[in-house]
Amino acid sequence: MEVLPSNPRLAIIGAGAVGGYYGSRLAQVGLDVHFLLRSDLEAVRAHGLHIRSIKGDFHLPAPHIHATTTEIGPCDVVIIALKSTANAALPGLIRPLLHADTKLLTLQNGLGNEEFLADHFGPERVIGGLCYVCINRTAPGVIDHSAQGLVIIGDPQGPPQPATRALGSLLASAGVDCQVSDCLPRSRWLKLTWNIAFNGLAIAAGGVDTSIIMNDSWLRQQAAAIMEEVRQAAAACGHPLPTSLVDEYLATTAQIGPYRPSSLIDYMEGRDVEVDSIWAQPLQRARAAGAVLPRLEMLHALISSAVARRMADR
Amino acid sequence: MEVLPSNPRLAIIGAGAVGGYYGSRLAQVGLDVHFLLRSDLEAVRAHGLHIRSIKGDFHLPAPHIHATTTEIGPCDVVIIALKSTANAALPGLIRPLLHADTKLLTLQNGLGNEEFLADHFGPERVIGGLCYVCINRTAPGVIDHSAQGLVIIGDPQGPPQPATRALGSLLASAGVDCQVSDCLPRSRWLKLTWNIAFNGLAIAAGGVDTSIIMNDSWLRQQAAAIMEEVRQAAAACGHPLPTSLVDEYLATTAQIGPYRPSSLIDYMEGRDVEVDSIWAQPLQRARAAGAVLPRLEMLHALISSAVARRMADR
Repeated sequence: MEVLPSNPRLAIIGAGAVGGYYGSRLAQVGLDVHFLLRSDLEAVRAHGLHIRSIKGDFHLPAPHIHATTTEIGPCDVVIIALKSTANAALPGLIRPLLHADTKLLTLQNGLGNEEFLADHFGPERVIGGLCYVCINRTAPGVIDHSAQGLVIIGDPQGPPQPATRALGSLLASAGVDCQVSDCLPRSRWLKLTWNIAFNGLAIAAGGVDTSIIMNDSWLRQQAAAIMEEVRQAAAACGHPLPTSLVDEYLATTAQIGPYRPSSLIDYMEGRDVEVDSIWAQPLQRARAAGAVLPRLEMLHALISSAVARRMADR
Repeated sequence: MEVLPSNPRLAIIGAGAVGGYYGSRLAQVGLDVHFLLRSDLEAVRAHGLHIRSIKGDFHLPAPHIHATTTEIGPCDVVIIALKSTANAALPGLIRPLLHADTKLLTLQNGLGNEEFLADHFGPERVIGGLCYVCINRTAPGVIDHSAQGLVIIGDPQGPPQPATRALGSLLASAGVDCQVSDCLPRSRWLKLTWNIAFNGLAIAAGGVDTSIIMNDSWLRQQAAAIMEEVRQAAAACGHPLPTSLVDEYLATTAQIGPYRPSSLIDYMEGRDVEVDSIWAQPLQRARAAGAVLPRLEMLHALISSAVARRMADR
C-alpha cells in the first residue's frame, strides 16, 4: 500500500491542544479517529470534546476514546502530538498501533522527532508535520483555537511520497489548512526561527508574553538578532532562508498581540519544556556544521538552567 | 586641606552589608563614625551592631546612629554604600554633610557613580572604591562577613591624590585590607568582569548561585564567554585586561563554593537591582567605543526584563 485507504483508521497520541484540535477536526467530518487519553479520559467520556475556534465552535459528544493503545489496535495513520520530552514513552505506545503499512505523522516541535521515530519504526513510515496555530487546552476536553491553523507536512528526507500527499488531502478534507512541503527540514527551520527566539525569550526574560517582547526595545532587538542567528544556523545546515524572514516575523508577531508560547506555559506551570528539540538539537547541528552562534548558545544554557530550577521548585 | 585631619569625622550613608561592615571596622578602632540608618535604627539603638566575621566577630554596643544627615552634620569623609539604584536620593542626603573639603568615597557597584557625584558636588571631592568581599546583612544590625574583604580605592581620573592615599591609610589602620589603585577605571573593569558574568547569569539562569553556574558545563562556558566579552569591552574603553583573567576568575569562583551575588539576592527578594551601573553603563560605553558584544547585549536585555517582572510581581 503506497497511499492511504479511503476511510483510514486514525489514532491520536497526545490529546492536548494540538492532538485534541486536529483530531477533533478529522472526527468532525466523520473520519474514524481514536484518541488516546489519560488525565482527561473521564471528563471527555462525560462531556465529549468542546472546540472553541475562530473558524467556528463545535462539539463532539461521543468521540472514540481509549486509555491504552492496545485497546485502539492497528491503525493506518498515527498522529503523534505528545511533547517531545515524552518521546521515551513512544515506542511502547506506538507498537500496538502498527500494521505493515501504518504511517506515523509527528506534529511535535523542533528537530529530532522524525529521526527518533525512524530509528524505532523505520524511515518509510515517518511523515513530519508542523503547526502554525495558537491553541490551548483550557480545561479537560476543552480546546481553545485563537489564531492561525496551518499545518505543513512533508517527508523527512526528499520530496513527498504519495502517502504524504494523500494525508495532506485527508487533512484538507477535514477543513484543515494544510500544505505539503517539498523540503520538510527547511520548513522546520522556518518555524524554528520564530520558536527559538520567542519561546526562548519568553522564558529567559522572566516569563513574558510576545507583546512584552515586542514593546521592549532591547528584547525586540534581541528577538531580531536571535532570529538572524537561526537563519545563519539554517544556512549552515543547508537551508538558506530568505533575508526578509526576520522582518516578516517581527511584523506578524506585533499583529498577533499578547501570546504566550507553549514553552512559556509549560515553564510557568513547572512542566517539562522541549529544550532538546527546540534549542539543543538545532544548536548542536548548526555548530557541527561550523556556525558561530553566541546568542543561541547563551539562550540554550539559560533556558536549560531556568527550566531545571523551575521544575525543582515545584 | 589636601589630606585628612588626624581624627576625621566620618559618615556612612547606607548601612546595609557594605556600609555596616566597613563602618563598623572604622568605629571599632575608635574613629568618629556616624551611621545614617532607616529601617534598622531601632534595632541598632537597642542591640548595637553585631559583626560576624572570618577575621573575628565583634560588637559595637552603642555606635553613633542617626535618622537624618542633618542630624549628623558636616563630616570630613562621607562613605556612600547605598545601592546605585537609590542615587536620586543622594544629593539631598549628602548636602548637610559637606564642608569645603569633605571627601566623598563611593563604594557602590559598577560604572557611573563617581560621575554622578562629581556632577553634583564637584570632581575634586570624589574618590571611588570597590569591595571584593562576601558580606550579607542577615538581620537588622547583624552583618555576616564570610569571605575576602579587600577594598580598592582610587581617583576617577588620574593617579591618586594625597587625600586618597590618606583615606587608604585610614582604612588600613582599621584592619581593612585596602589598596590604592593607580587607575580606578581599570580596577572597576577588573571587578565588573566577574560581576557582569556571575551576577548576570545568577539572575538570568533562573536564580542560581555560583556553584550551580560552575557545575553546569553550559553555564560555565557562558560565564567564560561573557567574561571574555567584558575583556573586549574594557579594552575598547582603553583598559586592556590580562588574558589570564578569565581562567583566574573561574578558578577562584570554583573555590568559594555556593555564593549568591548581591544582585541575585536583590532580585529574589523583589528589590531594585543595579542594572544600570553593572550592565547598562559598561555596555553603553563599550558599544560607543566600537565593541561588538552580543552576549552582553542579550544579558542586559534579559536582566532588565526579568527584574522589571519580578518587581511587578511583588
